[in-house]
This record gives sequence, C-alpha cells and structure tokens, in this order.
Amino acid sequence: MEMENWISALQLNISETQILTEVADRYSYSFDASFGEYLPEVVVQAKSKEDVIHVLKVANQHNVPVYPRGQGTCLSGGPLPVHGGIVLDMSKWPEKIEVSPDDLIVTVSPSAITANINSAAEEHGLMYAPDPSSSKVSTIGGNLAENSGGPRGLKYGVTKDFVLGLELITPEGEVIRTGGRTIKNVTGMDLTKLIVGSEGALGVITEATLKLMPKPPAVQTIMAVFDDVRTAGKAISKTLTSGILPSKMEFMDQACIRTVENFKPAGLPVDAEAIVIIELDGHKEALAIEKEQVQKIMEEIGATDTILPKTQEEADKIWYARKQVSPAIAKIKPTIVSEDATVPRSKIPDMMDRILEIKQKHNVEIVVFGHAGDGNLHPNVLCDKRDKEEMKRVELAVEEMFQAAIDLGGTLSGEHGIGTMKSPFMELELGEVGLDMMKRIKDAWDPNNIMNPGKIFPEKGQKLVLSDE
Amino acid sequence: MEMENWISALQLNISETQILTEVADRYSYSFDASFGEYLPEVVVQAKSKEDVIHVLKVANQHNVPVYPRGQGTCLSGGPLPVHGGIVLDMSKWPEKIEVSPDDLIVTVSPSAITANINSAAEEHGLMYAPDPSSSKVSTIGGNLAENSGGPRGLKYGVTKDFVLGLELITPEGEVIRTGGRTIKNVTGMDLTKLIVGSEGALGVITEATLKLMPKPPAVQTIMAVFDDVRTAGKAISKTLTSGILPSKMEFMDQACIRTVENFKPAGLPVDAEAIVIIELDGHKEALAIEKEQVQKIMEEIGATDTILPKTQEEADKIWYARKQVSPAIAKIKPTIVSEDATVPRSKIPDMMDRILEIKQKHNVEIVVFGHAGDGNLHPNVLCDKRDKEEMKRVELAVEEMFQAAIDLGGTLSGEHGIGTMKSPFMELELGEVGLDMMKRIKDAWDPNNIMNPGKIFPEKGQKLVLSDE
Repeated sequence: MEMENWISALQLNISETQILTEVADRYSYSFDASFGEYLPEVVVQAKSKEDVIHVLKVANQHNVPVYPRGQGTCLSGGPLPVHGGIVLDMSKWPEKIEVSPDDLIVTVSPSAITANINSAAEEHGLMYAPDPSSSKVSTIGGNLAENSGGPRGLKYGVTKDFVLGLELITPEGEVIRTGGRTIKNVTGMDLTKLIVGSEGALGVITEATLKLMPKPPAVQTIMAVFDDVRTAGKAISKTLTSGILPSKMEFMDQACIRTVENFKPAGLPVDAEAIVIIELDGHKEALAIEKEQVQKIMEEIGATDTILPKTQEEADKIWYARKQVSPAIAKIKPTIVSEDATVPRSKIPDMMDRILEIKQKHNVEIVVFGHAGDGNLHPNVLCDKRDKEEMKRVELAVEEMFQAAIDLGGTLSGEHGIGTMKSPFMELELGEVGLDMMKRIKDAWDPNNIMNPGKIFPEKGQKLVLSDE
Repeated sequence: MEMENWISALQLNISETQILTEVADRYSYSFDASFGEYLPEVVVQAKSKEDVIHVLKVANQHNVPVYPRGQGTCLSGGPLPVHGGIVLDMSKWPEKIEVSPDDLIVTVSPSAITANINSAAEEHGLMYAPDPSSSKVSTIGGNLAENSGGPRGLKYGVTKDFVLGLELITPEGEVIRTGGRTIKNVTGMDLTKLIVGSEGALGVITEATLKLMPKPPAVQTIMAVFDDVRTAGKAISKTLTSGILPSKMEFMDQACIRTVENFKPAGLPVDAEAIVIIELDGHKEALAIEKEQVQKIMEEIGATDTILPKTQEEADKIWYARKQVSPAIAKIKPTIVSEDATVPRSKIPDMMDRILEIKQKHNVEIVVFGHAGDGNLHPNVLCDKRDKEEMKRVELAVEEMFQAAIDLGGTLSGEHGIGTMKSPFMELELGEVGLDMMKRIKDAWDPNNIMNPGKIFPEKGQKLVLSDE
C-alpha cells in the first residue's frame, strides 16, 4: 500500500509516540475554529527542526499533503487537512522564549503561546504589541502563518510588523534563515514578510525573532455610548483625524452588547444601539489631555454618554466584556460564520449601512463588533449549518458582504486570512494576473504542491458552500 | 541591426521626445550616487502607465535589459544600467499627491518627491514618517524600490512600513494591484512588501498608496557630547532600554563633526570624540518628562555635556548640520564608499570598535555617522578611485566591515540596498539555499531577466572591485 509506504518512511526518523494514526486521535485534528471537518491520514507532533525536515522530505518524495497546525484557533480554515495527508502539529514543540532586552527583541519557538511572549517581555518593561483575541491559547507559529491582528493593531500594527527574522524549512526540506536580529535589513527581497501571512503555503516556520517595544507607562479606557450605529462610525473617523492615535478602538452593536450581557453580565448599556471602547496609552500627563479631547469629540458627534472608568478594575471589566464576545456568540446558535472584510477608515459608516441592508434582505442574524478604528469589522452570522435553506441565505449574505467591502475600496480579509472559505473570491480582489503572480511564487517554492494545498488559491470551479451536502 | 529594431519598436507607441539616444543625454543616466559608470543604449522618459507597459513588452520581445530610475540618489547602484539597454526615467512623470485625510492615506505617482508627500500631509495635520536624507531630491519610486530608511526609522519604521498598496507593471508588461487602501489586509501573500525593496527586479511601480499618521504636536532636540566613542554607543543602548523611544538618534564621530564644521560651521563641538543627537516627539507635557530622563541617562553613562536648544532655530541648526554630513564629506576626497552594514542595537559599541580596528589595520580614512539608535551606522571610506593601491586597501576594509556586521549578528545592508556592490556578499548572509529561494521568485516573475539585471544576485565569479581596471 502506498500509504503504508510513506508512513513507514516517516517512522524511520521520528519516534512512534509522535506519530498518531488512530482515528480518535486524528479526529481531534480534523477541525479548527472555522468551518468544515476533514480527517487527516496521519498526525505528526513535531518537536524539532529535524522532525520537520524529515516530514517534508518524505512528503515530497511521496506527494503527500502537509498541513501545519498550532492550536487550531484559526477562523479561516488555515490548518484544515482538506486533502487528507499529514497534519503537522507544532504545538508540542518545547516552548522557547528568549528575550534580549538590550536589542529589544525576543527569539521564540513556533509553539510559544502569544500571551506568554508578552508576559516574558513585560518582565523587562517591554511589550510584544500584537494581541489577537486568542492570544492566551494561540501559538506564535499560527499567528505568523496567518499574520494575526488584534485590537492594538490600530496603533502598533499586526504580527508582520513585529517580525525581524525567521527560520523556515522550505517545502523541499531545506533550512533557510530570513531577516535577522536587526531593526533594518534590506539585504535582497523581503522573504520574511512574504512568509508571514502566507498561511503555511511556503514552508514551515521553526523559529522567529520578534521586535519588542517599551511598554507604555499608562493606559486610559473610555467607553462611548451611541443611539445609532452610523453616528458611532462617524465618531471613530473623527477621533482618528483629530491627531490622536488610540491603542485600541473597538466597536460593539446592540445585538453584540446584549449577547455578552446575557452570557456574563458586565454592566454594558443594553439599550445602546452601539458602543465604542477606546484605550489610550502613553505618559500619564499626555493621557490626561487626550482623554478630554476624545470625550469632547464623542459628545460633539452625538454620543449619549461617555464613561471613564475610575479604577483599573473597572477598566478591566469593560475589556473583559469585549473578550467575551466570541464565546458569548457561540452559545446562541450552533454555527457562526465569522467575517473580517475590511474597509478604508472613512468608509466604516457606509459598511455598517451595507451590513444592515444585507441582514434585512436575506433575513439572517448578524452580530457586528470589531476593530473599528482600522476599518476591520467582524460581522458574525449566527446560523445552523443543519438548516440547508438558512445556509443558502447565509452564503448569499456572506458573498454580498465581500462584494460590499471591495466596492468600498476594501479587502476580503483584514486579519483572519483566506484559507478555504474566501479562496473562491480571490480573483474578485486581485484580478487574474495578480492571482497568477502569487501562484508563480507558490509553484517556484513548492513544485509538488505539498504545503497546505487547497488554501488561498481557488480550486477549479470552487464556490462558497456552507451547508453540508 | 537588432538594436535599431527594438528602438523602432519603442518609437511605435512612445513620443520621440521621450526617447533619448544622443550620447550626451545618455551620459546623464550613466551614474548614480554610488560607484561606477555605465552608458545605456537608450533612455525612455516614461510619463504614463501605457509608456511603461509598452517599454516592458518591447524589452521582453527583444530581450533588452530595463533599468528604472528616479532621481539617481541611490547609494548602492540600483539604477545603474550595468548591461546597457534601456534606462526608464520615471522622474518626468506628472507628480500626483492625493491626500485622503479621513482614511489617513495618500496616493502618489512614482515621480512624487518624498519631501513633497510629507508637506502635502502636513497641510492636514498629518505626517509621512520616512525621511531619507535625500528626501528633498529623491522620488518615492526610488524610495519604494530601495525601501529607504532615514533618521525617523528608529521610532516609525522605514518606507515599507508605510506602503499599503501598489500598482505594478510586471516584467511581462501586465498591470497588477497589490494591497489597497486599508490598514489591514491579509488577502493572500504580501506582494506589496515583497515588491518594496526588491530594487526594481520584479517590475515597475506606477502608483503607491501610503499610510499617514497624525503629526506629533511637539518635538525636543537634545545633543549629548562624549569624549570616547564606546561610551556614546553605551548611552544609545541605555536610552533605548529605559522605556523611551526617541523619534531620531543620530551619531557623529570626531572626523565627521570636524568635516561638517569645516564645510559649513554650525557650532558643533569640534573637540568631542563623538556626539549623539536625539529628537523626542509627542505631547509637550510628555516631552518635558522624557527630556529630563534622557539628560540623566546621558550624564550617568558619562556624557561630558548635554545641550538642549532653547529655540526651534537652535534645534534646526543642529539638524541642518547633521544633513550636511554627506555633502561635506564629498568635498574632502574624490571618492566616497558609503556603507550601511547594520548590527543589533546592543552591538553598536562592538561595531564601533571593529570599525576602528579595520581603519587602523588597512590605513584607510573612515568617517562614521548614522542612525545609531537602530544599529545602522554609516562608515564612509574617503578615498580616490584613481589610486589603485589605496582602492585595494579600501576593498579589503569594506569586506571586513561586512564580515564584522555579520559576525555581530547583523546585516550587509540596513537601508541602502544590495545593488551591484554588495551582491558578491549575498551568500555570506543568506546561504546558498536562501539566495536560491530569492532567485526562484525572480525567475518566476521575470523569466527573460529583463528587469534591472546585474543587481542583487551575484553574477558568476563576481567580486567587489572598486578601482577602475
């Protein structure tokens, strides 16, 4: 049997305890936080560079797909083994987090939990800025593959903006090092930033050197309450053009506020049509000025109330409520389609209007929240994938949201990635030649197409299908 | 004649006034701010996307090299037509600078002068942060091709960090758009950041959308004076790990200070072994605190003096002196070899020691200045290219500086690019496979190798040669 051949080849250099073939084990690797279930033929729990090299060499020789996976919190299907083959579990790798405070950098293993990197930096008065909502669970390897964002992206940027160097095992099993330990590097093409966000299509990251920054000495939270969604959108735009750059600027609509309050009450205003939660950071003296400016802007634009927490505990409670959005939503309906189409900042109010229209037109349940400050809304469609008729309406609604974002000068995905679900829409945004130039890189690096096949690039005739058929 | 064929083909769709064939005209395009002279066969002054498409289609059909060029301020040979062919002058393109203040972005033509972009942003209270020293002369097209840095890179990053979207004509003459007008975008691989800094090897940029940011309300300059170079290096490290991130942190050694003072006296301390010039930006209230912290650090580490300009005019005078470094150096000796090898921040004092050793060992004249805060020193070797014996010593010194940077965990180039001069050293930093993965992208995008050939990738047996032989 061909399959037995490549499994035997894997076993030659990798301990049997790291190779899972039982269906019960493999089942745990068949899904992520997005949509669909696919059973891999084998799971390899890589614990070293040599393990990864061996897996990729065997996979290349036998033409077996390899699907790298961190903690599986991906919202776009990144780790799903859509064509079977090998899931390469990187989360069992011994965690390494080495801070070099004098260089303002940290070197990490792919298995390092994102929040642990920030904690290690904080011991030196430093900060690792990217803060995806899954940061306490997700690995940096997954964050790198998907170029994860997070609330602090508004001021500080996303994962990619903090990567200085990578060690990568190429699809053919060779080791390369890109970038390095310096802030500036223009030695040839930027392979580092090409690899980050390439969703595992160009190789397996086995080490990363990340940039740290001084931790801001103080933070100030402000919550503004609105009685209509469009006004909230305008308040966000107005703040950003006033000369103030908050570290976070999050939006929640009424459905979202009520869902959270029903799940774990945090005292959010349940009658509000929308709230905007802002965090400013910097020197205490500067914050005292900026907080008054923000408050004034919110009130002038038409906020019905602005709330400044008096203690850190009160502020933490508001941010805790924001973190509860996804878990709270998950309790309402069995299926969630979580979108992240993103528009230019000034188009936030227009995008909100379009989402409302789509919701009414297709009679679907949509909860909206997200990193509104950078135009990155998360409309979440709540549905039941067993209800085929409903799912057809959801498919239409999702397609129209993608089209709306592109019509407004935006993009299919702000931070979740393309994965399986958005690949049919790639040409809509990139055009035929643009997609072809991307594909040329993939083909040049991975001639046998073993790395995470079935992602990013649409397969022939592929369409968005959300119902099980 | 073959050459007449492709020139006639160019003339089919491009006005004759835009095609220069006279030797006197072509000579103006034979050099840049680096080393070497190469006469192109033809110069085309592109003024539209259609011009560029036509040039690339003709060049592909006839296998003619194409060398895009902005204002020719490149320090690494980016625009040099080393294999003849066509110089594609992009600087005559009508300048377009369209600020969208609500989106915090600006859309520009490749010919836009970098400083003009910042001026246009300032009219809206915004800032385009990258500030290469050539910003009043250089075009954004050149900055994008080379991923230019500048003093403000310390706090804000380099050109690449501010590019959201590009329009590119591919080497085969097709139009693609990468990225867009949103802050976040993870729709497939990041072609935008791959193209920026690829030194014209992957196509011709015809439009760019850049990120703007609120202009900081205040700035504060501090000049610290040192009686040895190593202490200055330590003071830089110490400041950066104290929780303060200055917007600029520039270093000048004694040779550099004296050269500037001889050129245009600005009142710099000529007896100092080194000075560090710092700029802080932010709220006035925060600056009042930070300036005291910086002053304290400088004095504790051993600065002999710290000078706080009392007026904006006094501060401007110091920064003007810093800007005079390159022109002042150019007056001393006929030839300057300007390096930009970059090390991790904590290695700045070690790199300074290594440069001193190399200077003494090979008896060459080296002036050191640069963006010390991000480990990006500019050792400039002053020499005379007609003196073959001296140039051999310069070659050895330059090679040893590259090696020193790599030994210290650094890189060949922090901001000038590889071009012709550093290509022989690429494998030293990237390894054989790393270089091959870069080459695969080049081959996949430009199968006929018409875009800026002879750059980045070493040609067979290529060595560093600085003397004319």
